[in-house]
Amino acid sequence: MELSIFNILDILGTIAFAISGALAAMDRRLDLFGIFIVAFVTASGGGTLRDILIGDTPVNWMQNTIYIYLIGVVTVLAIIFRNKINYLKKSLFLFDTIGLGVFTITGVEIGVRSGLDPIISIALGAMTGTFGGVLRDILCNEIPVIFRKEIYATACIVGGLVFVIMHSLGAKLDVIYVTTALIIIGIRLVVVKYHISLPYYYISEKP
Amino acid sequence: MELSIFNILDILGTIAFAISGALAAMDRRLDLFGIFIVAFVTASGGGTLRDILIGDTPVNWMQNTIYIYLIGVVTVLAIIFRNKINYLKKSLFLFDTIGLGVFTITGVEIGVRSGLDPIISIALGAMTGTFGGVLRDILCNEIPVIFRKEIYATACIVGGLVFVIMHSLGAKLDVIYVTTALIIIGIRLVVVKYHISLPYYYISEKP
Amino acid sequence: MELSIFNILDILGTIAFAISGALAAMDRRLDLFGIFIVAFVTASGGGTLRDILIGDTPVNWMQNTIYIYLIGVVTVLAIIFRNKINYLKKSLFLFDTIGLGVFTITGVEIGVRSGLDPIISIALGAMTGTFGGVLRDILCNEIPVIFRKEIYATACIVGGLVFVIMHSLGAKLDVIYVTTALIIIGIRLVVVKYHISLPYYYISEKP
Repeated sequence: MELSIFNILDILGTIAFAISGALAAMDRRLDLFGIFIVAFVTASGGGTLRDILIGDTPVNWMQNTIYIYLIGVVTVLAIIFRNKINYLKKSLFLFDTIGLGVFTITGVEIGVRSGLDPIISIALGAMTGTFGGVLRDILCNEIPVIFRKEIYATACIVGGLVFVIMHSLGAKLDVIYVTTALIIIGIRLVVVKYHISLPYYYISEKP
Repeated sequence: MELSIFNILDILGTIAFAISGALAAMDRRLDLFGIFIVAFVTASGGGTLRDILIGDTPVNWMQNTIYIYLIGVVTVLAIIFRNKINYLKKSLFLFDTIGLGVFTITGVEIGVRSGLDPIISIALGAMTGTFGGVLRDILCNEIPVIFRKEIYATACIVGGLVFVIMHSLGAKLDVIYVTTALIIIGIRLVVVKYHISLPYYYISEKP
Repeated sequence: MELSIFNILDILGTIAFAISGALAAMDRRLDLFGIFIVAFVTASGGGTLRDILIGDTPVNWMQNTIYIYLIGVVTVLAIIFRNKINYLKKSLFLFDTIGLGVFTITGVEIGVRSGLDPIISIALGAMTGTFGGVLRDILCNEIPVIFRKEIYATACIVGGLVFVIMHSLGAKLDVIYVTTALIIIGIRLVVVKYHISLPYYYISEKP
């Protein structure tokens, strides 16, 4: 694994998602091992789903040991600094958004590289970006937050769309990565700052 | 993808399951994107599990873009007509049953075609038919309805059994499809009409 | 499938996990089919995840019909003797621990045999040993017990570590199996007897 911009972003994303998983697990008062599991699942779940759907096995974290060590270290640090991290929720939010952006990009790129249809590649990217958080919430027995708050996955989809368009126009990969990541991060920052949310619908009880 | 009877039934099943997912999501007051996700997972979950277990990757919906577009359109229509659909629960129930039957058949057929043991093919069929609904209920944080009501999966198993028997007797595939689908639909209609349920057992608290 | 010590332990493990799933399902008052599903998922979930992650498909239970029959028989017996089994919780606990140990070993061994890094093999073993129980708890809509009680997965990890060390020292496979299984069983027995638990951490609400 060489250290390209891509890999650096990937590692940042893994760290951010691992922290978010560890925080959720401590919030649920899980024990040491439970915290590690939730951190691991949150950080590696998206990439694992991506690799399984595409048939690229053994999955990525089984081939690069760096992820398991990284998540272990992050878990320990998250436990030690748990009350401080809580204050740092804003920077956590930023890291989480970086992770969302980067993991989305890995999914879209692998889809495009595998010759899949652009819209399928975008769906794969959105799943890669969001599935870790969904698993985290299922393990913690809550309705996945992705369904409740902010335009979380929508940012992935818009970013994925830009990725696919730039790619079909022949833009350089590095440029695509940075642009797409900035778009996803930007959308999420704006959405949360201005409390924008998608409309929701419900079935009227007395028609 | 050519349009055989099989494909037409498959598309009907996808539509029905997508509607059922969208309704469940609106009942939970999820936002626009959440509704689409639950509809997508409900409609494609069974086939995805089938393809992953059998090792046929990239999974089916990644290779045929029609599914993702279809589910998107169904989601929008389900939102627009949400209160009307609610009145139409009986026809939804019929569509859902068609989906159950058809998806079961795809699973059994792929199992048989892959040279798996008949009972394994039936299990694969039952999983293909029911897993989408299980995922839907897990995402919506409920005990899967499959465990609580009606002889849902049992219908799949009986249908799968008939499929395997007819196949071993050398019947034509078209005939097998239609017969098996009608049996599954028939069982479910009768079971629900006459409130038949499987026995349940529990551990007595004071022995 | 020849009957080595390994296979015998594997079958014992399948039986134990199937009983544990059936008991959990009866506790939730699921119907006959629901009980079978939960028993099946608990007993085969770990091995299925292992095979999917590693890319060894169709997964194991699809290639050896013995598992599906075995789980079916165990489910029926568990229902018939449900109140007696409840008294036998101690022997169930022992069986469950045997299953945990054996399934962990299958995961570690397959990881090592596939040329994966030792720590990845241990992780694969721990997942194989514990995932069935996690699925059981998710299906029954509870926070996975693995996160709440005893040093469940930690025993797997210690056992996996011993497996990897003995393997790298060139010990015979049979010896490794028995030693590792005994270590996992021993740790769990001691931990439960003396109420040892891992520390847990939480975020202080008023810092």
